[in-house]
Amino acid sequence: MSLESPSLIQAKAEAARTASRRLATTSSEQRAGVLLRLADLLEQRQAAILEANAEDVRAAEGVIDASSLQRLKLDSSKVAAMAQGVRAVAGLPDPLHRIQLRRDLDEGLELTRVACPLGVLCVVFESRPDALIQISALALKSGNAALLKGGSEARHSNAILLEAVQSALRDADLPETAIQGLGDRAAVAVLLQRPDLIDLVIPRGSRELVQSLQAATRIPVLGHADGVCHMVLDQAADTTMAVALVRDAKLQYPSACNAVETVLIHRGAAERLLPALVADLAPRGVELRGCAACRAIAPDLLPATDADWEAEYGAPILALKVVTDLDEALAHIRAHGSGHTEAIVTEDAEVAARFLAEVDAAGVFHNASTRFADGFRYGFGAEVGISTGRIHARGPVGLEGLLSYRYLLRGRGHRVEDYSGPGARSFIHKDKGAGAP
Amino acid sequence: MSLESPSLIQAKAEAARTASRRLATTSSEQRAGVLLRLADLLEQRQAAILEANAEDVRAAEGVIDASSLQRLKLDSSKVAAMAQGVRAVAGLPDPLHRIQLRRDLDEGLELTRVACPLGVLCVVFESRPDALIQISALALKSGNAALLKGGSEARHSNAILLEAVQSALRDADLPETAIQGLGDRAAVAVLLQRPDLIDLVIPRGSRELVQSLQAATRIPVLGHADGVCHMVLDQAADTTMAVALVRDAKLQYPSACNAVETVLIHRGAAERLLPALVADLAPRGVELRGCAACRAIAPDLLPATDADWEAEYGAPILALKVVTDLDEALAHIRAHGSGHTEAIVTEDAEVAARFLAEVDAAGVFHNASTRFADGFRYGFGAEVGISTGRIHARGPVGLEGLLSYRYLLRGRGHRVEDYSGPGARSFIHKDKGAGAP
Repeated sequence: MSLESPSLIQAKAEAARTASRRLATTSSEQRAGVLLRLADLLEQRQAAILEANAEDVRAAEGVIDASSLQRLKLDSSKVAAMAQGVRAVAGLPDPLHRIQLRRDLDEGLELTRVACPLGVLCVVFESRPDALIQISALALKSGNAALLKGGSEARHSNAILLEAVQSALRDADLPETAIQGLGDRAAVAVLLQRPDLIDLVIPRGSRELVQSLQAATRIPVLGHADGVCHMVLDQAADTTMAVALVRDAKLQYPSACNAVETVLIHRGAAERLLPALVADLAPRGVELRGCAACRAIAPDLLPATDADWEAEYGAPILALKVVTDLDEALAHIRAHGSGHTEAIVTEDAEVAARFLAEVDAAGVFHNASTRFADGFRYGFGAEVGISTGRIHARGPVGLEGLLSYRYLLRGRGHRVEDYSGPGARSFIHKDKGAGAP
Repeated sequence: MSLESPSLIQAKAEAARTASRRLATTSSEQRAGVLLRLADLLEQRQAAILEANAEDVRAAEGVIDASSLQRLKLDSSKVAAMAQGVRAVAGLPDPLHRIQLRRDLDEGLELTRVACPLGVLCVVFESRPDALIQISALALKSGNAALLKGGSEARHSNAILLEAVQSALRDADLPETAIQGLGDRAAVAVLLQRPDLIDLVIPRGSRELVQSLQAATRIPVLGHADGVCHMVLDQAADTTMAVALVRDAKLQYPSACNAVETVLIHRGAAERLLPALVADLAPRGVELRGCAACRAIAPDLLPATDADWEAEYGAPILALKVVTDLDEALAHIRAHGSGHTEAIVTEDAEVAARFLAEVDAAGVFHNASTRFADGFRYGFGAEVGISTGRIHARGPVGLEGLLSYRYLLRGRGHRVEDYSGPGARSFIHKDKGAGAP
């Protein structure tokens, strides 16, 4: 049971829907104005924000693990970064009202397809309080309302950050109900049963969080549960490049979803590549687990078990497997990959082309680190999340993932009956320029 | 319980997945070749098709209603139209492998976003056997595999049409498992629980069918349950145009989802418009139901009840309501519309602009019949269905709705660590041309 009654939760969602209609017709300047005001407020209120956060940190010390505590803890540079991030979102090109298609169906009968917000988002995130600011900025920039549930260990931080968002909305004469907090996970559970109230669920957090939300709702969930990414080292891989890319993909940020978990090494290059990998990674503290064929070449490796091929370590651990050929590598990826990001290292253009054509994943890379799979690195200016679903948005999702569209048709009394039967008019379907409204 | 065992159903879906991978890498010519072959086969096998269909019709006579029987029944012109439709789909521009984005992230590090198939579709349709051919053509053109469940009253027709599709696949040296039939609705029920096997569910049929599928699965369902479309006759509506558009939207094809169900008439024009509407529609056999204010002007109207504002008649029945102003019309549409298609008739450009900006529906029309909401009329060349969802595709959906995309990244050993820390490289994010592969 939620501490909030179902009728209160419904009322919040309905107020969010009403606010979303208002947001949908706002100008780019109005929405950017809210964000610039929010950035100022974050800076002005920095002392109070850090105080509230300190209260959360005190209560959490010894209760949550060190890395969660690290994510929970704010300092002046994190607050400055938050404000900076909000200003960056404010400065992005306006995604709303853009004309995606403009076509004369007939003389005087013009069809346009215009970007519009999705409506109301339900966002669930874990200990990192800066997520509240980031997702609020993305929602408002794209004209969406959002109901937010943050981690309970960040409750004081989240409350003061939410108040800043709502202040900025009020100051811009927009409804503060556009961004609201939810009291607890039970409130989320109520909303997950209401596809009439919520258009998209966005989890930002652990695999368990994503899976629990996906299992509990028919509302679309944007994101990914698993990031089991592979790197294939082909027979024709350059040794130096292969080692450097595996090191980057594993160690640059081991807990990232786009970090590599399993390296598949072509049999014909294993004796060359495997010792080079071990020599580079073992001294850097990477725990290496290998198949039997790997251990025949590098006996110091720990034995890999079947569970290793499914593992998303989120840690400096790497599974290594020798494969007979590209077919076996592709089959392994089909069986164990999570559709996130898969990479091959090879100087053989034909092998690369086949890999790029055949692998079914959100990201398929040649001679590049899997860590590039990211909305900022792709140049989207913002990242809502990374989706491994095939419907709606796939891969790193920018503001575009928070949009739908409407078809507008402007006529002069045009009737369908004039386009059928003898002597019927014909459609001309003449495309004209698309772009800004 | 299905007549097919769960393991057989799973095996079918897995074979479809394997076939879909093959289809995903085929050339435009190969896929178009299958369709041209299919069109020829339909013509060559016309006699056998009509014979199988006659068997279905004999068994269904007196069992299903007249309009269902009409949809079930094939004749030589319907078979010719099927073949023609398949050739038309074959001739559409290839939707696959198109480059939607091409961007240099840095020198030698090129990102492309390339269209790819969704994978495996599960399509459920009712008595119209030509739906089998149409959806098979759309699936194959877009590189998707499909599992099809047709109406049991069309079983002989569907079997012979499916055999034609599979023959065309075999003749093109492609796996016939790309398009398979499902034995019964229980087999569909098994697949609805398997988001790992099915990427998209497409219902083609009644509201009840759509709702039952939506309620039974977490897999995305493309389509719409309701088509409660409104036409608003503003104070500044031209009388002749208003009458002609309502007539077209109601009578041109009353059972279509984009037919108008409720007409909202501005109070200031009701005395002018309502008698003109009645004079035009009543003699054409339209049953007119009005609110109290309507009946004060046109006493012959039947009284409308609250249920009429929710009704999708699918028949020559029309609900009429007088509204005080545009605000009341917009509120009525928000409360009772299904997000399908909403239209306004007015000569007042400001009123039209507000209606087009504020109504949240897949189609929002000014001075045009709601019946234009259709993939062919929009110029998509094909229609997969009409979606009232906001996620993925909205409104009439062409081949685009059967596609996802992959991000391909081609580098020369690029590592993320070179883009962070002191002396880091910067991304250049330079867009280049998109288009055909």
